[in-house]
Amino acid sequence: MTSASSFLLASRRCEIAELEQLARACEGVGVIGRFIHALQRERGMTNLLLGSGGRYGQSWREQVACCDRAQQDVLHTLEQLGTDPGALKNGSRLFNRVALVLHALDGLPEWRARIEAHAVEAADATAFFGKLIAALLAVVFEAADSAGDPEISRALIALLHLMQGKELAGQERALGARAFAVGHIAAADQQLWHHLIESQQANLQVLAELGDVAAAEGVRHEWPELERLRHLGCEGPAGARDSRLSNVWYEACTRRIDALKLAEDQLTLHLRRLCGRRIAQARGELADQREALDRLLSQAQPVDPATPAPGAGRSLDRAVLEMMQAQSHRLQQMADELEAVRGRLSERKLVERAKGLLMSHQGLSEEQAYRSLRQLAMNQNRRLADVAASVLALADVLPGGAR
Amino acid sequence: MTSASSFLLASRRCEIAELEQLARACEGVGVIGRFIHALQRERGMTNLLLGSGGRYGQSWREQVACCDRAQQDVLHTLEQLGTDPGALKNGSRLFNRVALVLHALDGLPEWRARIEAHAVEAADATAFFGKLIAALLAVVFEAADSAGDPEISRALIALLHLMQGKELAGQERALGARAFAVGHIAAADQQLWHHLIESQQANLQVLAELGDVAAAEGVRHEWPELERLRHLGCEGPAGARDSRLSNVWYEACTRRIDALKLAEDQLTLHLRRLCGRRIAQARGELADQREALDRLLSQAQPVDPATPAPGAGRSLDRAVLEMMQAQSHRLQQMADELEAVRGRLSERKLVERAKGLLMSHQGLSEEQAYRSLRQLAMNQNRRLADVAASVLALADVLPGGAR
Repeated sequence: MTSASSFLLASRRCEIAELEQLARACEGVGVIGRFIHALQRERGMTNLLLGSGGRYGQSWREQVACCDRAQQDVLHTLEQLGTDPGALKNGSRLFNRVALVLHALDGLPEWRARIEAHAVEAADATAFFGKLIAALLAVVFEAADSAGDPEISRALIALLHLMQGKELAGQERALGARAFAVGHIAAADQQLWHHLIESQQANLQVLAELGDVAAAEGVRHEWPELERLRHLGCEGPAGARDSRLSNVWYEACTRRIDALKLAEDQLTLHLRRLCGRRIAQARGELADQREALDRLLSQAQPVDPATPAPGAGRSLDRAVLEMMQAQSHRLQQMADELEAVRGRLSERKLVERAKGLLMSHQGLSEEQAYRSLRQLAMNQNRRLADVAASVLALADVLPGGAR
Repeated sequence: MTSASSFLLASRRCEIAELEQLARACEGVGVIGRFIHALQRERGMTNLLLGSGGRYGQSWREQVACCDRAQQDVLHTLEQLGTDPGALKNGSRLFNRVALVLHALDGLPEWRARIEAHAVEAADATAFFGKLIAALLAVVFEAADSAGDPEISRALIALLHLMQGKELAGQERALGARAFAVGHIAAADQQLWHHLIESQQANLQVLAELGDVAAAEGVRHEWPELERLRHLGCEGPAGARDSRLSNVWYEACTRRIDALKLAEDQLTLHLRRLCGRRIAQARGELADQREALDRLLSQAQPVDPATPAPGAGRSLDRAVLEMMQAQSHRLQQMADELEAVRGRLSERKLVERAKGLLMSHQGLSEEQAYRSLRQLAMNQNRRLADVAASVLALADVLPGGAR
């Protein structure tokens, strides 16, 4: 084996090592998805518990126990990440996101104690769960952002958008449940409701464009009962919000969220299979390449060293060069595809950057910054990413601007 | 130490590990730069040897020995890379580039034997060295492309453009030396000469915009003697190319190339210091952060556990959250700066993609593809990157196109 061909094989081995690392990240995303789903259910139960004045206590406690188990799985996965910092792509960003998750989780027991003692407003508890879930989604975002394989990146980005859409559906469930329970809705909440519906659609649209067909089918399902209740709750006349509808609304939303979870499970399974297939494929190609190189080398070595076959070295040479150029071409194509797929993450990046700008220049907290952007988007009836782009563009021309 | 804060510290440690890896890559780039310079001198000597009909043999042999030593350093550096494929960012692309370099190096002894036997045309030998140097520059490109620190990335990209400009200056030296030696110049070579001058300027322009001031100063130096000879050699009337000027031209070019090498050495030194400074800075920040966390934790733990200081846990909580958010903000800013700096590599990426397209669709070799693009650029008097973009755009609309 020449040293040139051993580096050609090492190039493949790097690809396999990266794919294996990516497969572990995808497993982690699956575990996080299950935890988010459990937290969403706990948030829903919390709203029911706090709204009912004490009923639902048993279901709530069961859900807390279920959440704790899912949390243990997440912590176990994250601890395994932490054992080898040097081997991680994008490790500094990922670990900082994990730190923010763990920090939010530290507050969970205290919140639960206050919820059980009915010493907290439903809206505040809902906001806490929302922040925790947002921190978990930020970890998924980093995993998607650092994926180096275009096909896996595509599936991860689809999954991220499905998870984001599902979380917005969870927020809508909580908002609607409160509106039905108290029997009226403030103008600001009406506006927020519309925003939550539109943002869900935008996220699920990305999924439909990127995701695998089965998952997209599950998402495109129509929910006429939910549509009717949405209309009633958000736009209906005073008196339309019968508090008995709160439960009906909650159940209707839950059926849809469970359907989204099913699509999420399908997509997670698809992702796992995809990782397995890509790794097997890369290993197969490595084996083929090694075999081809061995064959070429044995042909180039004459049986009798005194009479080398004419041109054998040169044809080996050409064959090896062709393999390397094919590898270059393939890696280039993968990089191009990856760039195109990752463009889907640019909207979220814009929002992150605009948030960071508002935090550092206006002294806002992360949540305040997000709420400001969302309020601007709702007031101007524009998409969040467009508002973020405007904020960033404005900062560039202001004195003492962002950069 | 809470697990949240230990992940905050792990985030820093990832950054340090990445910087250390980047520092090793920068050392490798320095070693490659010295080898490229030695190869450029060997190419120049080769042209003199083949043009002189046998003089310069001793200088040529000395330069070959010097090149061999520089090559050993490169091989040693590359071997060290190969020991841990999993730990490398962008490893598959980098290793494939290295394989192409080693493959080209395998051919070097045979070329030298033919050169010493005067059994090869000067233009062909020059083309071989050009291919070898292009393969080495492609390794430098991958190192620059995978750098995750904006400041180091900026310096690496500046260095890459300086190295590219210097290589174009070396090609110009060889072209001019041949033109003076034979006493005339073909129209195609005239066109190529102009192209080489303009491409040098474009590369050194990027350096001036990105690089450190001292290196850019060294590059901006004026060379009136060289300008005069350029004009004479490229545009002068028949008879202006006195073959005795071949040596004068060669020396004038060599002085300029040596000045560029000096700027390259300065920039390499700057890069090494920058890496050292960034690593020391990141380590210092890690130590500060660890100390701050320890202090906060000891304040939060009451001397007498029975009477905890009121609110101490909460202020620890807030302080840790602020550190995490500051880290998020800093990483986000670095990512933004990195994206802006890496835009400088997009021109080269366009050319690579257009080359790949021509190779796969027209069945051209890499060199033929490059020559086709260059010819198009020269014919249309446009920049290589613009022509590459047109080729890629055209491919998108053609049946059976690129994607």
